[in-house]
Amino acid sequence: MNKEDIPSALLSNAVSEFHKLPGIGSKTALRLVLHILNQPENEVKQFSDALVQLKSQVKFCKSCNNISDTEICSICNNSSRKENLICVVEGIKDVMAIEKTMQYKGVYHVLGGIISPLDGIGPSDLSIDLLLNRLNKFKNGEIIFALPATMEGDTTCFYIHKKIENKNINFTTLSRGISIGDEIEYADELTLGRSIVNRTAFEPSFR
Amino acid sequence: MNKEDIPSALLSNAVSEFHKLPGIGSKTALRLVLHILNQPENEVKQFSDALVQLKSQVKFCKSCNNISDTEICSICNNSSRKENLICVVEGIKDVMAIEKTMQYKGVYHVLGGIISPLDGIGPSDLSIDLLLNRLNKFKNGEIIFALPATMEGDTTCFYIHKKIENKNINFTTLSRGISIGDEIEYADELTLGRSIVNRTAFEPSFR
Repeated sequence: MNKEDIPSALLSNAVSEFHKLPGIGSKTALRLVLHILNQPENEVKQFSDALVQLKSQVKFCKSCNNISDTEICSICNNSSRKENLICVVEGIKDVMAIEKTMQYKGVYHVLGGIISPLDGIGPSDLSIDLLLNRLNKFKNGEIIFALPATMEGDTTCFYIHKKIENKNINFTTLSRGISIGDEIEYADELTLGRSIVNRTAFEPSFR
Repeated sequence: MNKEDIPSALLSNAVSEFHKLPGIGSKTALRLVLHILNQPENEVKQFSDALVQLKSQVKFCKSCNNISDTEICSICNNSSRKENLICVVEGIKDVMAIEKTMQYKGVYHVLGGIISPLDGIGPSDLSIDLLLNRLNKFKNGEIIFALPATMEGDTTCFYIHKKIENKNINFTTLSRGISIGDEIEYADELTLGRSIVNRTAFEPSFR
């Protein structure tokens, strides 16, 4: 759908704003905007206010940099969570994914990205300094790197590991291996190789 | 993604607003909202303003009910278009689709829907009265029904046809038949049957 095919500048403007969103093509953008146009005015206002309020009022936890409605997020504030177990993640979505497993009882640190020179993201764009400050009062803790298994993820782990001078910290990463339910013959070589090297003890009762 | 998995009420609110849009699931909604959260504040404002302005300032052409930035849309205002040839369509998107073919030199009438008792849409919800008023000053004109080939579309054509008392009007509908490029063996029976009954003269020079 070309811009000149749209008979109203207001419509065309709204469509091009939607078109900027990731994964929204111009046809989808038009469909969404025409849907919004059919909604009552107060609902459109509500939609638009939700976005502006999100951007202007959202807070990031002063401890872990996770998105939060309060100065300190509900996870950091939860006294039943282990303070000396920090899981370092790239973004908010990773926190949600790990929380959903209900297997983790520590706290998080949200970097807000990973080091990626090609995208112009350096260590100073991430919340690494905040993490280093946090670690100063750390005693016999553990840091779990839950970053993507890519060059950028590995670089970020390596950078943070080098920066940390506190020697009482144990570093771990998520285990990599064959996904549960996957066929071995279809696993990629790298994953299969690593899952042989890092094989774990067989536990008959565990599934 | 459940609402309770989202660590901020503001975020959750914005996600549920996006989730209301057609074809946007909760995961896509979260992805879009996190993208918006990463944008500068003025761009978010611009996005939200585009929607509010669209809803509050958009006009519908007083003649044909098409979306427009002016009282009378650019198509109705164009003196080179045939005033006594009106193509009746369901919505704005149909106007765009027909305009894109560059084959049509008449004007339009946008009904804003079709009669559909199951969805609670009756004749009074559509711009049928506007069309009837328009036709009072009509002389030897033609009305093309470009409505969906469904029960609702046919009902709408039938209803409008009955309402029109001006006897100098020629009624036509879009031709139905095999799509250009389609194999005959795969055409559905109804379309194939109708395309035999409504066969057209063979024109050797036309492709």
